[in-house]
Amino acid sequence: MDNGQFFDMFSHLHVYDLEQPRYAGAPIHPSHVPGFIYTLHRHHEAGTGEARSSASGIMYAAEHSGTHIDALCHQAENLTLHGGREITPKLQTSTGFTELGAETIAPIRSRGVLLDIAGYRGVDWIDGDHPITQADLEGASRQQGTAIRQGDVVLVRTGNGSRWNDAKGYLKAGGVEGAASQWLAEQQVQAVGADNMAWDSMGTVDPTLHVSLPGHLILLVRHGIYIIENLFLEELARDQIYEFLFVCLPLKMRGATGSPVRPIAIAPNL
Amino acid sequence: MDNGQFFDMFSHLHVYDLEQPRYAGAPIHPSHVPGFIYTLHRHHEAGTGEARSSASGIMYAAEHSGTHIDALCHQAENLTLHGGREITPKLQTSTGFTELGAETIAPIRSRGVLLDIAGYRGVDWIDGDHPITQADLEGASRQQGTAIRQGDVVLVRTGNGSRWNDAKGYLKAGGVEGAASQWLAEQQVQAVGADNMAWDSMGTVDPTLHVSLPGHLILLVRHGIYIIENLFLEELARDQIYEFLFVCLPLKMRGATGSPVRPIAIAPNL
Amino acid sequence: MDNGQFFDMFSHLHVYDLEQPRYAGAPIHPSHVPGFIYTLHRHHEAGTGEARSSASGIMYAAEHSGTHIDALCHQAENLTLHGGREITPKLQTSTGFTELGAETIAPIRSRGVLLDIAGYRGVDWIDGDHPITQADLEGASRQQGTAIRQGDVVLVRTGNGSRWNDAKGYLKAGGVEGAASQWLAEQQVQAVGADNMAWDSMGTVDPTLHVSLPGHLILLVRHGIYIIENLFLEELARDQIYEFLFVCLPLKMRGATGSPVRPIAIAPNL
Amino acid sequence: MDNGQFFDMFSHLHVYDLEQPRYAGAPIHPSHVPGFIYTLHRHHEAGTGEARSSASGIMYAAEHSGTHIDALCHQAENLTLHGGREITPKLQTSTGFTELGAETIAPIRSRGVLLDIAGYRGVDWIDGDHPITQADLEGASRQQGTAIRQGDVVLVRTGNGSRWNDAKGYLKAGGVEGAASQWLAEQQVQAVGADNMAWDSMGTVDPTLHVSLPGHLILLVRHGIYIIENLFLEELARDQIYEFLFVCLPLKMRGATGSPVRPIAIAPNL
Repeated sequence: MDNGQFFDMFSHLHVYDLEQPRYAGAPIHPSHVPGFIYTLHRHHEAGTGEARSSASGIMYAAEHSGTHIDALCHQAENLTLHGGREITPKLQTSTGFTELGAETIAPIRSRGVLLDIAGYRGVDWIDGDHPITQADLEGASRQQGTAIRQGDVVLVRTGNGSRWNDAKGYLKAGGVEGAASQWLAEQQVQAVGADNMAWDSMGTVDPTLHVSLPGHLILLVRHGIYIIENLFLEELARDQIYEFLFVCLPLKMRGATGSPVRPIAIAPNL
Repeated sequence: MDNGQFFDMFSHLHVYDLEQPRYAGAPIHPSHVPGFIYTLHRHHEAGTGEARSSASGIMYAAEHSGTHIDALCHQAENLTLHGGREITPKLQTSTGFTELGAETIAPIRSRGVLLDIAGYRGVDWIDGDHPITQADLEGASRQQGTAIRQGDVVLVRTGNGSRWNDAKGYLKAGGVEGAASQWLAEQQVQAVGADNMAWDSMGTVDPTLHVSLPGHLILLVRHGIYIIENLFLEELARDQIYEFLFVCLPLKMRGATGSPVRPIAIAPNL
Repeated sequence: MDNGQFFDMFSHLHVYDLEQPRYAGAPIHPSHVPGFIYTLHRHHEAGTGEARSSASGIMYAAEHSGTHIDALCHQAENLTLHGGREITPKLQTSTGFTELGAETIAPIRSRGVLLDIAGYRGVDWIDGDHPITQADLEGASRQQGTAIRQGDVVLVRTGNGSRWNDAKGYLKAGGVEGAASQWLAEQQVQAVGADNMAWDSMGTVDPTLHVSLPGHLILLVRHGIYIIENLFLEELARDQIYEFLFVCLPLKMRGATGSPVRPIAIAPNL
Repeated sequence: MDNGQFFDMFSHLHVYDLEQPRYAGAPIHPSHVPGFIYTLHRHHEAGTGEARSSASGIMYAAEHSGTHIDALCHQAENLTLHGGREITPKLQTSTGFTELGAETIAPIRSRGVLLDIAGYRGVDWIDGDHPITQADLEGASRQQGTAIRQGDVVLVRTGNGSRWNDAKGYLKAGGVEGAASQWLAEQQVQAVGADNMAWDSMGTVDPTLHVSLPGHLILLVRHGIYIIENLFLEELARDQIYEFLFVCLPLKMRGATGSPVRPIAIAPNL
């Protein structure tokens, strides 16, 4: 395959867009209110003396608004980040972290696997009372014929992505149990993601670890595995694309605890 | 090539990161001051009653800060956007545009070509007094052996990307002349980009079109060709990678006139 | 009265605080969402090497959030500001107005008159279906024994200020009819204010002027009379203080269309 | 004196405006960059179908930008606020403090005294190498004939306010030594203020307390005395008004470590 064939191949593969649209009023975790706001202050207008005009604006946004990836500095266990880094004023500053910030996340371009748990269970979406278990992950993986391998990015579909425009309902979705996150960590995946606000179920405490959002502790702090939230997985599921090239390019926002992203899935055409 | 080989190939190709780092104080066009600001307001701290803690922040940023792509609504000619869309209060609102906003830019994954003009001219960087001409583009293309084809993304290296940490000096770089932008438009490229603030030279008026930033008018308004600014092209040039797979995933910020991006170049390994 | 007596007198007069508290989630007009947001990014923390520490934050706020005064540039009639100033790109810029901005409002320290319309009507609050008429203003003024004089600041009580903590209910309050605003303008008052979001009733069109928010057009544009919104007037009404020294000190935010303020009423003690 | 005479008296007293204008690019302490930014996103424009139009914007601002007052929660000594309040996650939150925030500052309307130290020394402005001593304060007070009394607001003039438009030069001004702040605290004043960025000199360490900005520790933490910064005192000094009614109305921004203010001085006319 020469360069021309390589580029050609790419331009013909189907791309699935996994990002939810960004706008004021989109679903947001209470800790990250108001989410994303964009205002236009430079306008196209008459009377400037030139035929060309520019318009532009400002965004005010939590880095955890919309589809985003969590940087490793986002979470700590007993005031220690991943890799045993103790929180000090030098590490944690008013303008971000001097280690493990979003700028340290390399471009991701790996095998991605979709585990369609809503499909596996035959429900429209996973609700908060029935979180996703290790058995769900293993069962879906087996049924789909997509084994998890080291270095994969594993995307878990709750089905919740279809109600992004229902900000209140969206927050009620269930997430992944601590034990299921632990199992994924043991598979040595590179990153995980889901179509809900927090990967974990919100508002519950893990019975073993005695923390809320146990997956955040297990994945980010203990294993250095990135979490991607608020993904849009409906089209992948509809087309039963369970295995794909996953590309995600976090912005290098120095010291930030995450980054908005527009991940894509490229389906092999074989 | 089966799926496994496809993913394998990808994980072994070299990725060039074309984004400059984002931080307060980075170079910024006067129209987009203060550029990018990030503040951390949720901190890891003792005394919360849980072993796990979260930190997070807020960004306040011009969408044209750092490495970014211009949406088509960013520019108008005689109060008309690309495709003859007239500016009205319905099209241009206080929170962005109802057509041609950043959310309408599809993921880009195309053949990319680097035209290393600083290298072609044998200078460290192109300065404002010697902007880039059509002859430069054609000469570099010929010398490099990389013809421009319809649908390409053409990245023009001024050499300026090496001084991102010198905010004042960075703004003095030269850009691409109107006639050279016109020539690129005629090649029917999909997008262009450069390692300077504004693609065009700043502070000059095109002798034919009688506008400042003529490339913005020609490319965005007249031809619907995206412009990517503040790219980092030093490593591509150093390795003489003039042809590559270019991937750029703009955030779907509804109505925004552009989006921060982290483009990558994937070098074929042949 | 010597200086000492003058200062003494002042320290003994009762001050009424007419500002509502500022916090995220307070009532806000849909045009000014998200209102007021404050985040703390510099924290008191251990380990900085000094016994003294500083904490500080950032506010992101519409200038029309909370208790605020409208600058004259806030409103236009047929694209003309107060005093016949035509809107041009030189007058109206992306960072504010070059004339009639908030910085042009002198400190206000004048006779203030409270017209307690809720009290006059014997209702808890004026609702949107029964806006305040000229007859209400004249009737309350007569009943209270407080005539309006040239140069006064007239505060109109709808009773709505008691439900500031009910963001949804607060927006349902009624306001002042166009004809009543016109009558106030004819009294040549210096400024007006009310304990609702918009002075005018929201969501109705004036039958004579054919505009929404007619008081804004009459007062700000045609007569150069400032409007103060979201006042807290409950304590003044409770104590039947209908006449007082009114002090209001707008921030000189260059070019802004208004300013947050903390007005006070000083009751003469006679 | 009846009400009419009282209001009349007030409308005839001269008001000195002690606030510096607010705009992007004004002097700012490095910890509070970018200071104050205002962008206009709702514009007066044609085509909205109504004769009346509204314009409005958003401010993004450090509460310590421009002329402002420090709330008591702004400073801590050994992680303890004024009154022995220990810093905990309940007291210090990501959105501000639950005690001693700006909303707890009552309206100030007290005797004010100007100590014109630049005038006393016969210099244009006090520079960083010659900070203001207790002897300066006492000497100026004696020379002016204005003794300091309990409950006063003491404004110290460095002369620096005349160069507000020189953002770089402004930051070089000298401030008040720790021992001089201690002396003021012992006079039991209510608040102090100066025409410089930080009351204290910036960049020096107090030889006794071993902290930077010793006045902040002494006044705010140890004595509960407010500090007002970036005052404009040139006109007061020019007119030799050393004693006046000082009025300052901080915004009740819940939990904030300070508030922008527009203080005024009202000269008795005797």
